[in-house]
Amino acid sequence: MANSKFEYVKQFEQPDSLLPNTWIVVRLDGRGFTKFSTKYAFEKPNDKRALDLMNAAARSVMSELPDITIAYGVSDEYSFVFHKSCTLFERRASKLVSTIVSTFTAYYIHHWPTYFVDGPPLSPPLPSFDGRAVCYPSVQNLRDYMSWRQVDCHINNLYNTTFWALINQGGMDGTAAELMLKGTFSADKNEILFKKFGINYNNEPEMFKKGSVIFRNYELVEPGTKRVGEEAEEMSSAVPEVKSKSQVEKDKKARTKAKIVVEHLDIIRDEFWERRPWLLSGKPGKVPKEP
Amino acid sequence: MANSKFEYVKQFEQPDSLLPNTWIVVRLDGRGFTKFSTKYAFEKPNDKRALDLMNAAARSVMSELPDITIAYGVSDEYSFVFHKSCTLFERRASKLVSTIVSTFTAYYIHHWPTYFVDGPPLSPPLPSFDGRAVCYPSVQNLRDYMSWRQVDCHINNLYNTTFWALINQGGMDGTAAELMLKGTFSADKNEILFKKFGINYNNEPEMFKKGSVIFRNYELVEPGTKRVGEEAEEMSSAVPEVKSKSQVEKDKKARTKAKIVVEHLDIIRDEFWERRPWLLSGKPGKVPKEP
Amino acid sequence: MANSKFEYVKQFEQPDSLLPNTWIVVRLDGRGFTKFSTKYAFEKPNDKRALDLMNAAARSVMSELPDITIAYGVSDEYSFVFHKSCTLFERRASKLVSTIVSTFTAYYIHHWPTYFVDGPPLSPPLPSFDGRAVCYPSVQNLRDYMSWRQVDCHINNLYNTTFWALINQGGMDGTAAELMLKGTFSADKNEILFKKFGINYNNEPEMFKKGSVIFRNYELVEPGTKRVGEEAEEMSSAVPEVKSKSQVEKDKKARTKAKIVVEHLDIIRDEFWERRPWLLSGKPGKVPKEP
Amino acid sequence: MANSKFEYVKQFEQPDSLLPNTWIVVRLDGRGFTKFSTKYAFEKPNDKRALDLMNAAARSVMSELPDITIAYGVSDEYSFVFHKSCTLFERRASKLVSTIVSTFTAYYIHHWPTYFVDGPPLSPPLPSFDGRAVCYPSVQNLRDYMSWRQVDCHINNLYNTTFWALINQGGMDGTAAELMLKGTFSADKNEILFKKFGINYNNEPEMFKKGSVIFRNYELVEPGTKRVGEEAEEMSSAVPEVKSKSQVEKDKKARTKAKIVVEHLDIIRDEFWERRPWLLSGKPGKVPKEP
Repeated sequence: MANSKFEYVKQFEQPDSLLPNTWIVVRLDGRGFTKFSTKYAFEKPNDKRALDLMNAAARSVMSELPDITIAYGVSDEYSFVFHKSCTLFERRASKLVSTIVSTFTAYYIHHWPTYFVDGPPLSPPLPSFDGRAVCYPSVQNLRDYMSWRQVDCHINNLYNTTFWALINQGGMDGTAAELMLKGTFSADKNEILFKKFGINYNNEPEMFKKGSVIFRNYELVEPGTKRVGEEAEEMSSAVPEVKSKSQVEKDKKARTKAKIVVEHLDIIRDEFWERRPWLLSGKPGKVPKEP
Repeated sequence: MANSKFEYVKQFEQPDSLLPNTWIVVRLDGRGFTKFSTKYAFEKPNDKRALDLMNAAARSVMSELPDITIAYGVSDEYSFVFHKSCTLFERRASKLVSTIVSTFTAYYIHHWPTYFVDGPPLSPPLPSFDGRAVCYPSVQNLRDYMSWRQVDCHINNLYNTTFWALINQGGMDGTAAELMLKGTFSADKNEILFKKFGINYNNEPEMFKKGSVIFRNYELVEPGTKRVGEEAEEMSSAVPEVKSKSQVEKDKKARTKAKIVVEHLDIIRDEFWERRPWLLSGKPGKVPKEP
Repeated sequence: MANSKFEYVKQFEQPDSLLPNTWIVVRLDGRGFTKFSTKYAFEKPNDKRALDLMNAAARSVMSELPDITIAYGVSDEYSFVFHKSCTLFERRASKLVSTIVSTFTAYYIHHWPTYFVDGPPLSPPLPSFDGRAVCYPSVQNLRDYMSWRQVDCHINNLYNTTFWALINQGGMDGTAAELMLKGTFSADKNEILFKKFGINYNNEPEMFKKGSVIFRNYELVEPGTKRVGEEAEEMSSAVPEVKSKSQVEKDKKARTKAKIVVEHLDIIRDEFWERRPWLLSGKPGKVPKEP
Repeated sequence: MANSKFEYVKQFEQPDSLLPNTWIVVRLDGRGFTKFSTKYAFEKPNDKRALDLMNAAARSVMSELPDITIAYGVSDEYSFVFHKSCTLFERRASKLVSTIVSTFTAYYIHHWPTYFVDGPPLSPPLPSFDGRAVCYPSVQNLRDYMSWRQVDCHINNLYNTTFWALINQGGMDGTAAELMLKGTFSADKNEILFKKFGINYNNEPEMFKKGSVIFRNYELVEPGTKRVGEEAEEMSSAVPEVKSKSQVEKDKKARTKAKIVVEHLDIIRDEFWERRPWLLSGKPGKVPKEP
């Protein structure tokens, strides 16, 4: 074939399959969102429209990629988790990352007018995202990753809430507010919020305090006595399974029936994972009856 | 800090910087575009609107990422080339790939209504792209990569043009057309087109025959006697340079002034590269006087 | 400094640290040992001197690298296992592999005259080994790897024992013996051995049938009811621990005191691992009292 | 097959082929050689026996691996270069590194008694080496790597020669000598050597000053006007060649006939490479007539 003379260049493509039997996390981040959020006058410290748009885009990603088990988002970042048994795209890092980032971006642009109804339409430079994949060998590593992001959400949100209260309600400028918060602990910020501005941080919206977690919903399970993760290791084999075709079809059907929900829950404590064993086992739960 | 207990999970992030002093090609491809092109009734074998949209998106990518030297697109794929001296994002593969794919997707969705004026608006599932990065050590390898894509464009377009002529004008069904073309050479297809349908393949639009090449435009250079690539190796050092700040500023200005053009040229022959030495040298050319 | 002009070449070194919290197996294999074993007239199907030499070299490797948990050898190959919590050489693949392969080779050459007492001394080309590192995320994966090698040992040894009996005692040539064994099952080979040559395969030396396993020896533990591996996951945290200095010292002392033993045991069944919990926990056991 | 249940563990092996069309350098270093050289009373600053042994081991490596183009050694390190067109072991990093390190170690141990005739025989812990592979895309990068090592040799040797003269002849202790040399330039050290000890550094042995370079020897070529490297790029294609069988055989024969020589030359200047074009072209030169 005429093409063969040049085809040797394919040899330079290097494989990038991720280690089997590990949890894959693909995290994306907004590029230059400080500038972008100024351009479109995002509300500070949190813009509900912007967060709802992030959640809508992430929900669409999960809907188009049923292999994703759970996603967690805060601010302009989102983490998507593939079960350790996942073999999508032969686990190729660049394919997984680029597909998620592209799909997310497509929906972000597409849904923009739905969420920013009164604002100006998007104009170049357009918002975009970058991403990367990381492997976590054990359930504990994965849960610690999720906890890391949620603790980060809490710390940043408490800081930002206080910072912007000092500015918007306290009349400070940014430098003064920054100086005032330097070296303070959580308790100090809570007190500033309450004493100065009558704000009880606990009453802030859950989405701001906890971020957003997205997953397929099945019937909740009564928490048992087993250690979480231990159960998961038992339920999902380390050995690549050869599922029967009918089982694969059944699982697929169950997943399609399941509703993808966006919640603002504590994902650090065991309870979240104990009551939703399908997240760690990789096996779909029982689809709840429609009321 | 409260977060430190979980922060160890950052240790699982593995570096993915690409080998220095190699040309980086990021190629993206449409995901499931056969189905997608049917949904939006793309014209066969080529839909000018779809190709113009691809080109517009690629042009925007180049405009937002001045480190990209040249891009080449055909059908639903696009290749972006970073000069071997490029140090953008510390040459991290996932960052380079995800940024390009995300930016491209954003503009593809955004510009859709401009190019598909009379068609239905986009609706889920939205178009998306995946991508990967490949390193090429030498100018010859890079040019062979570009040639590979352009030869592929030619072979596919000649086939598709004949195939769809047999169907649209010849009244065949797909199976019959496929059977008829099996084992034919280029000359055969040219003859079928000409004898059966009065089509002179040479008169087909350049964009369909050659694909699209995008680059910053400077004054063309009279082709000399030097071997291309040789010159490039001389002009762009293998050693990471420490450019003076004023040189960096000057280069940046030149690049910003340069017009990004979309052309449909032969990129296989030396002439294309000889007349545009800035592509391989990585040094901006002379900005042409406005007429 | 005068050297700085060239020092940029260090930038081309790419990191190759292995994923944390995974078991690292470094396996080495003899290079061209078919030819080598002919040159030195190794006994077929097993040469006790050659296997003892392999074991002696592996034992020395374990002695010089206390981070190695367990090793398993058969024929001209040896696998060395680092605990998933190991941080030796920052887990760099090339450093781990080259150090083990080099140390092993050094002792193999050095101990040769001790084991091949009556044979000719080594002469070029000298025996050498190559190696590679593989990561296993879970205890089950690791044990399956070890089982894979031991099953391989069994299959090959049964085949070779029969093959060489047919030749050495049965007077066949290689081609005839190969043909005769084609398509046979284990039972068939056992029967040939017994009926034709009066050999009861079960009575063959354990080293030939099971290969060799090397580890630090502590007091055996009464097997409990816990699933192996489960226990291991509990006992050895997925989180990088900050051990107190005195604990590190204590562990080191215990390891130094422990005797490194070479055994020929079944490492597929749970019992082996249950009675030696230190192998999977990474925590030294109780040093047995000297008798 | 009985083994299939465990064979899935092979899936965890990850490919590590090095980028095609790049020069591969495998560098090995002695492990803990400060301690080792004390144990065997190496002469300071250079022990001729130890360097000769390093060279003998490296020579044997080159003899067993004809794919190696050139090697350069200094102190307890050695670098081996594979031509950019090399496809040995499918360019797998761990296989290349481990094979070289193992072969080198084997000969180091084996030849020890030949070079340390009067010293004590080797005893555990035995000397060993670690290694790593690095890719260099261009001839300039490769030559800069080689120059980097030779400049390092020079700097270290001048320092060490002066340092040990101050101790052995000047009666200083290490701390005083170190203090005296702190912040000195080359000229200062040359002067100390000459004025204090009557040593003309230029008259020191070439092996100490320049290190050792090993290569296959062919007839030297009259240096022409062509830039080195340029010629190399022309002579050795970036495209994987399909050589005729007879050509491969001819090249192999030429390589086998060629003598492997150990020299102490300046490898920084062009002349070394210009007169030995086979080093960069990868094509064997003309075997010199025996005198």
